[in-house]
Order: sequence, then structure tokens, then C-alpha cells
Amino acid sequence: MLKIQNNINYFFKDLDILKKALTHSSINYKSNYENLEFLGDSIINFFITEWIYKKYPHLTENEMTVMKNQYINKDYLSKISNILKISEFASIDKNIEISTKISCELFESIVAAIYLDSNIKNTKKFLNKNLIKNFEESDKVIDYKGELIIFYQKKIIGNLIIQTEQLNESKIFISKISFNKYHFYGFGFNKIKAEQNGALFACKHIKDTILQKRVC
Amino acid sequence: MLKIQNNINYFFKDLDILKKALTHSSINYKSNYENLEFLGDSIINFFITEWIYKKYPHLTENEMTVMKNQYINKDYLSKISNILKISEFASIDKNIEISTKISCELFESIVAAIYLDSNIKNTKKFLNKNLIKNFEESDKVIDYKGELIIFYQKKIIGNLIIQTEQLNESKIFISKISFNKYHFYGFGFNKIKAEQNGALFACKHIKDTILQKRVC
Repeated sequence: MLKIQNNINYFFKDLDILKKALTHSSINYKSNYENLEFLGDSIINFFITEWIYKKYPHLTENEMTVMKNQYINKDYLSKISNILKISEFASIDKNIEISTKISCELFESIVAAIYLDSNIKNTKKFLNKNLIKNFEESDKVIDYKGELIIFYQKKIIGNLIIQTEQLNESKIFISKISFNKYHFYGFGFNKIKAEQNGALFACKHIKDTILQKRVC
Repeated sequence: MLKIQNNINYFFKDLDILKKALTHSSINYKSNYENLEFLGDSIINFFITEWIYKKYPHLTENEMTVMKNQYINKDYLSKISNILKISEFASIDKNIEISTKISCELFESIVAAIYLDSNIKNTKKFLNKNLIKNFEESDKVIDYKGELIIFYQKKIIGNLIIQTEQLNESKIFISKISFNKYHFYGFGFNKIKAEQNGALFACKHIKDTILQKRVC
């Protein structure tokens, strides 16, 4: 239990709550992380919304929504969960694969556990370090825009339009990616990042729906 | 500005934030309550989730979701907003009708304004007094179940099934209302209340979709 606490850089007063946060329903049907995860999700949502509100006071509600979705989406939270290696310490049936969903849930339940073990201040400190700084410092750009263009060239999607603009009163960029009748949005601190982030959502949609249908 | 503060029983240090919370985009396109509302929504979500988590630790995630939806739905928040008479103090174009959506948004923006003007503790106190106590003390039951049965008798809906059960480890009841291919859930501290709450959602759906289509 010490190693996980080292990884997340938070040391619990109540180890039972940490244990619960790491227990999957496949191990304990009654006492597992499910309702902690439910609470953690609302804490992360609140934290990110407040952070965006304070850092970018001039954004419209829609722009705030675009930005928020990139911080609270399952893929990003799962990535952070994997960086902290949380799933390595989880109690989970051996036959169950640690999916993106499960690693995201583990991160959310750990957030709730920190909150219940201490207070909102410590929880914000943890989230600031792990969600905000990782996002800003991340420079590993997978070329989702390139992948998207390949989908277009192969005629898997049609009418691809990528529009990116810098918001007047802030340093951020918003990219709108349209094809068929779909629209996806991405934001970033430069044009490339905004487009990559939007393309990530678009590619995910294509893989989850359009390509799935072709396979079936 | 004093009267509204009396109504909500919170007195602002910074009156500008209160003013912003009461300004609709029809009056000021740039500085209005929209992003405060966005923040307020996440605060209410967090508050209700924590309250449910602590008060009903044995609920499953699904049961928590049912309960949460009744506290954070637009109709309920709008009702509280109307009790506090918030819209009477709003700056809004005279041609715009104060809809359920707008009165709900005003409540959410006032919540964010209280939070930014003070802290989470005061905001929780405000929400506890207005969201929790009003919900628990409310005894004005509109007979939505009766309305639902009339929809069934008039063959507007088919195969109506109402199933209500008391949850083993708590004092609350959950009602599941099914018709056609839809399911709606309600909870309450007694069987009647749970059914009425579920029926409220069901009736709203019938009025918003099935009856709308008949008119068109």
C-alpha cells in the first residue's frame, strides 16, 4: 500500500478508504469503488470547471465545454491513471482486462478517496499536479490529423473540413472538424495541438462507429 | 439588490458578481451569467453527489444516479429559483419569457456567485437549506401517477407497468415506470412519493414528445 501512495504522492490517514478505492466489483460485490468513482467524477468535473472559469474568464459557455471535455474524457483520465500506475494495485478478477473504462474509474475513485480522507484543498492540489500539469506539459503528439486525412483519402468519410481559430481574448486555439454530418471540437495552446485534439475525438468516433459497422 | 440578498439569505461582499449572476445575454452579450451558470452547475452536481454518498452509503451507482437526477433536474432547480424569486431581480430583455430553463440557469449562476464571493462551506450551507430541505419538506404532491393512468386509459401510451420497491439497506423507495419501450425512475422517502416522482418524469416525456407529435 506504500508504493501506490508514493506514486500518487498522497499518504492516507484511513487506509480502508484507499483499499475500497482499489477494489473492483468482481472481487467484492458489496464494498467496491463504484460509489467512490461516482463521487470522484463530480469532484473532477467541479475542479476542471472552476479551473477553466478562473484561467479563461472570457470564454463562452460553448468554448468552456469544448475545453472541459478534453480534460474529463475517459481517454485522458485513463492515461493519467496509467501514468500513476494505479491499476497495478487494484484488486480485480484476473480474467478481467484493465480497459480504458476501468483505469479511468480507478482514477476517479482515488480522487474521491483523497477528498474523503482529507479535504477539497488537498484534492485540488492532486488534480492540479496530475490533470493540469500533465496536459500542459504533454508534448507527445500522435498524428490524429494525419490519420483523419487518411480516412478521408480512403473515402471512409466525406467532406472533411478543418477550421482552426485563435480566440480573441485568450491564448487558446479552437479547432472545428467536420465531415459527413458530424462536428468535433478540440482546443490547445497552439494551432497544431487544437487540431490534433479535435482529430483525436473525430478518429475515435470513426473507429467506434463507422469502422465498426463495416466489420459487422 | 438588498431584497434579493434577503431572499437568498446571503449577503455579498462583491456586488458586481451578484449583478453578473443576474444579467442575461439579451442585456449584455459579453458580460452575463452564462459562464457562472456553467460553474454553478458543476458545484450543484458535486454537492448533491457528496450529500447522497454520505447520507446513503449503501446505494449502488445506479440508485445514486436516480436520486441525483431528481435533485439536479431543471424542473426542480427552477422551482427552487422561483421560491427564492430570483428572476424578479434579473436583467433580461422584456420580450423574453422567463422559462424553466432561464430560472434554472439563474439559480445555478447565483450558486456560483456565492461560491466565488465566499467559499465552498457557505455554498454548501445555501444548497443544503434550499435544495435538500425543500425537497424533504415538500409535501405538495401533484397527482402525476393519476395523470399517467389517464394517458394509459386514453391509449396515448401502452403497456403501463409501475414497480416500486423499498431498498434493503436504506429508508428509500425506488419506482420504475415502464410503457412502450421507455423506462423512468423515481425515488422518495415513501412509496407514494417515489411513484409520483417517477410519474413526473414520465408525464413530462409524454407531453414533450408523444403529445407534441400529435399536435404537429
